[in-house]
Amino acid sequence: MTIEGDIGQLLLDVALEAGIFIPAACGGSGACGKCRVRIVQGSVDALKLEKLTAAAKAEGYVLSCQARLTGDVTVEVPRVKVGRKVIPRDEAERMRVTAAPMESPIIPEVNPMTVRVFLTPDTPEAEDNASDYERIVRTLKVDHDIFPVTANLEVLRELPLQVRQEDWKVTSFLQVEDFPGLDTTIYRMGKISPGHIEEFPTALAVDIGTTSLWGELVNLDTGEVLARASRYNPQISMGDDVISRIVFALKKDGLEKLQQQVVKGLNEIVDEVLERSARKRNSIDYMVTAGNTVMTHLFLRLYPKFLREAPYVPAAQNVEPIPALALDLNLPSHAFVQVFPGVASYVGGDIVSGVLANGMWDSDEMTLFIDIGTNGEIVAGNRDLLMTASCSAGPAFEGGGLEYGMRAAPGAIEGILIDPDTYEPMIKTIDAKPALGICGSGIINIISQMLRLGILNQNGKYAQTLGTDRLREGRSGYEYVICRAAESGLDEDIVLTEVDLDNILRAKAAMFSGYTCLLDKLGLSVDALDRVIIAGAFGSFINLEHAVTIGLLPDIPRDKFSFIGNSSLKGARLAVTDRTLFNRSRDIARSMTNIELSEDPSYMDNFMAALFLPHTRAELFPSVRLEA
Amino acid sequence: MTIEGDIGQLLLDVALEAGIFIPAACGGSGACGKCRVRIVQGSVDALKLEKLTAAAKAEGYVLSCQARLTGDVTVEVPRVKVGRKVIPRDEAERMRVTAAPMESPIIPEVNPMTVRVFLTPDTPEAEDNASDYERIVRTLKVDHDIFPVTANLEVLRELPLQVRQEDWKVTSFLQVEDFPGLDTTIYRMGKISPGHIEEFPTALAVDIGTTSLWGELVNLDTGEVLARASRYNPQISMGDDVISRIVFALKKDGLEKLQQQVVKGLNEIVDEVLERSARKRNSIDYMVTAGNTVMTHLFLRLYPKFLREAPYVPAAQNVEPIPALALDLNLPSHAFVQVFPGVASYVGGDIVSGVLANGMWDSDEMTLFIDIGTNGEIVAGNRDLLMTASCSAGPAFEGGGLEYGMRAAPGAIEGILIDPDTYEPMIKTIDAKPALGICGSGIINIISQMLRLGILNQNGKYAQTLGTDRLREGRSGYEYVICRAAESGLDEDIVLTEVDLDNILRAKAAMFSGYTCLLDKLGLSVDALDRVIIAGAFGSFINLEHAVTIGLLPDIPRDKFSFIGNSSLKGARLAVTDRTLFNRSRDIARSMTNIELSEDPSYMDNFMAALFLPHTRAELFPSVRLEA
Repeated sequence: MTIEGDIGQLLLDVALEAGIFIPAACGGSGACGKCRVRIVQGSVDALKLEKLTAAAKAEGYVLSCQARLTGDVTVEVPRVKVGRKVIPRDEAERMRVTAAPMESPIIPEVNPMTVRVFLTPDTPEAEDNASDYERIVRTLKVDHDIFPVTANLEVLRELPLQVRQEDWKVTSFLQVEDFPGLDTTIYRMGKISPGHIEEFPTALAVDIGTTSLWGELVNLDTGEVLARASRYNPQISMGDDVISRIVFALKKDGLEKLQQQVVKGLNEIVDEVLERSARKRNSIDYMVTAGNTVMTHLFLRLYPKFLREAPYVPAAQNVEPIPALALDLNLPSHAFVQVFPGVASYVGGDIVSGVLANGMWDSDEMTLFIDIGTNGEIVAGNRDLLMTASCSAGPAFEGGGLEYGMRAAPGAIEGILIDPDTYEPMIKTIDAKPALGICGSGIINIISQMLRLGILNQNGKYAQTLGTDRLREGRSGYEYVICRAAESGLDEDIVLTEVDLDNILRAKAAMFSGYTCLLDKLGLSVDALDRVIIAGAFGSFINLEHAVTIGLLPDIPRDKFSFIGNSSLKGARLAVTDRTLFNRSRDIARSMTNIELSEDPSYMDNFMAALFLPHTRAELFPSVRLEA
Repeated sequence: MTIEGDIGQLLLDVALEAGIFIPAACGGSGACGKCRVRIVQGSVDALKLEKLTAAAKAEGYVLSCQARLTGDVTVEVPRVKVGRKVIPRDEAERMRVTAAPMESPIIPEVNPMTVRVFLTPDTPEAEDNASDYERIVRTLKVDHDIFPVTANLEVLRELPLQVRQEDWKVTSFLQVEDFPGLDTTIYRMGKISPGHIEEFPTALAVDIGTTSLWGELVNLDTGEVLARASRYNPQISMGDDVISRIVFALKKDGLEKLQQQVVKGLNEIVDEVLERSARKRNSIDYMVTAGNTVMTHLFLRLYPKFLREAPYVPAAQNVEPIPALALDLNLPSHAFVQVFPGVASYVGGDIVSGVLANGMWDSDEMTLFIDIGTNGEIVAGNRDLLMTASCSAGPAFEGGGLEYGMRAAPGAIEGILIDPDTYEPMIKTIDAKPALGICGSGIINIISQMLRLGILNQNGKYAQTLGTDRLREGRSGYEYVICRAAESGLDEDIVLTEVDLDNILRAKAAMFSGYTCLLDKLGLSVDALDRVIIAGAFGSFINLEHAVTIGLLPDIPRDKFSFIGNSSLKGARLAVTDRTLFNRSRDIARSMTNIELSEDPSYMDNFMAALFLPHTRAELFPSVRLEA
């Protein structure tokens, strides 16, 4: 068979995406040596060959988890022994991989929220002894047509020494504030630095998720992402979901504590991206955050009580730029924070950011946008009309609430292929680190495969008589062993329990019911959709067929689907690089109509009907054929 | 003789202004009982009669320092014994006073820097659950045409509870920020208060002088001044004049200490005007300050070093509104400070404020404006051209640097009349408090009279052979006793020494040289002037003739002169009540051309020539006739 891969991609990843089983038990770290393949034609960039004998190396064997494509190549996947069984896999014996260069990331127009201007005002003399600040303002206006300019006291206090340090050669950093309704732009002087600073300024794009925080450091000259980092939202210790966080916030000092926690996490992300990119903290001009409405309230310390009481009213959605220090962020004194506006209490700035990133606001195509996070949010429509709703899917697809669930972070099992004969799994972890748990894409992939192979029935219960020791009775009912302790990064087996399965079933039913209800409001069936865009930080190996198989995504032509990953972070990055897009996001937020599903009786009906794999009404998923 | 007085004016003040000697030794406090007069016709509103015998009362005697005009009245001033001499004063025996009602203060158009709007946004419901803040913004726009609105985080944090406290009935306080160059106005939400607050908001007009601080609390509904307070600038302990303050500021923590001191003084003034007017602190929306450039730098903690190094460049002149809390002012969290822009390092916001108040910027008349403060500043011109300069007059006319000098505060001797026969002084103190010292107007009055009576020669030295014990040899040469210890509020005699006289002579020479040089630059002689406007906080009893007699003011027709008092405070009050005038002050500041007199050789020549009373060239003061 001939399959396609990208230059630089690992052979193991290519095989996984193509559904070719290679017994990768250690997650891709090069430790187990089981994923060896032989290069028949062409060559690869291979590392870590110590698990291979000299003879094997001489024959052209490499570890598929350590070999990156450099061009077209033909690979022989050996017959291997798994457990006590020899695996025949004739058709997969040879795979021919055609390599395409990695698609270059789209660089949007660079039009940041700050501008940096090199100035050399006239040196004062007796005939012209205007103040330091007025000299700067005058030069900005006359030489650069930049006005009106404002400056806060901190900037003015430092001005006299700074302008004289390099003989009136300075760099002025200005925050650009648009007032779109008025066609007015005001320039706020963030700082003045002595000399002409050639080093490029940076800004941060941040996604504040209920479960995870993501941050990217962006070069404001080019729009290029310099470094990326993520971690759990430290607020997790104060509640798994938004409702429990609100409850915590209403306790004494609860709101303050929650704010401190998320800022702590963000400060760590800032430290990490600065270290990774070897940039200085002082290069950071601003941060754009996208988060759901509850996360945004907690980050800004806005009183969240009325978010959870009908009619669910936020304190504020459109917030002006905030000095970073006012939020205790460890950022330069001139840095500010721009917060994505939300639509409603349960459709927040992360969704607006996602809509900005996916382009449906500017498209004629009837689009369904599904963001699978701790909350599930859905947007349907096009440039003429955007409707949105949220459903409490719970954090299962982010790995939350599962025995060995985890977010899409290094060590998370994201790719899984189960051998149909032996029921042995081939696993791929993020960053090829020893397996620590399973993330969203791994969960969708494994459930779909277990359903197809009959390991699981349509009610989400395990078949108990398959004769594999991967399936066993555990502490909380039956469970499947995804990764054995010896091969994992933990001291214990990584398993998926029936309790986990129940959680996942409810999460997928909530998502299904959510988009079904919203399309009903629009009078549309799924067949009328031109596009379905899936977002979510569940790892990059989410497989479309698998997601349809379990009934999470609608059973429509596959070419209508696309995956956008963490669209909230993507939208934040777009806003970082182009402030006109951020301004546009305010219009997008205003134009979105929110539907409260919790008030809608059809939501519960649809939910109940979806608590089955793929669905109680099999005709909704005609392409799904189960072996059972 | 018939003289004019105002309804409510004290008889003592009427007499003093008219040059009618009444032996008021205690300053007007009603303690000495010497200023008795008899009401012959009409009546007065008389207090404190305990110093009078029952018989005297029956005859119609009152204390002139305790009797206020209620209408026309004829008064008999008795012959009195002063020291060992009986005073004949036939022509002053009876004075007929015609009383005019007090002129009502001019109330400018009320157009403050903040607006207060009563709002009742729609109560949220399922079909309309926009955020609290957006509901407010929407209502402001739809019902009041107020947009764009911005709000800082503090306001948003308090919003949810405040809007619900009185069922969505709120009062919104908005700061109005004009961008005149752009014809744009932005509304900054200062605070939201539950309910519809009918109580009027207030603001403070403040003059930050080198020697004195003045503050007025203004009703923003009517423009009325509710209370006034003043005190010494506590920075005095760190230097008498602006140069020594700058020197102090450049020491370690010096600038911080100076700022703390002036803020301490301002906070005391705030406390006092609130107490006097019985207003709540929370009623204060903003403060407008006018001060010279050095005072403004120290107040804002702007680096002042380059103010005193040629070419004398300030850090900044046009400063945006500053949150009051950022300056440690004890004002509500929503309050802000607006600072008058200056022209140059030694022509500051106090002069711009004064020019705003005196109207010369909007007049065709060729005007000379002289502000006699610790620094002397001069502006000449009209609506077509304004030139300005400063001269180091020193603080003598504010009472500074004199043995018993003091600012124009309660207890300061402001009015003086010396009896030509006995050389005994009649004194009037501010607020009729026991005398504590002498202020500017008292100094001008006494020197002029001493010069005319030959107590003083034209070199500023005392005649030593007059045979009055008011004149004596003291610790530092000859001195004149203005108020004896027994009649003063001090434990010692209040005297004017020859060292004091020398200080005053130098101060008046500096002022004279300043305006002479500036008019030279304009190619004008004093005769070409249409108006001369005198400002200065030297008390309200400055007498024009006296000021010309000593050579401080030019000898031109008296009807061209007017006194405006503390014009810096007056301009600040105008700006408080009408923000368009504040905006105008920025244009005024920009339009003023500053001349550095310290660079001009003719300044020193003029100064030297003026070190004589009234001047070495007597022809410059033709109307001044000295008895000697």
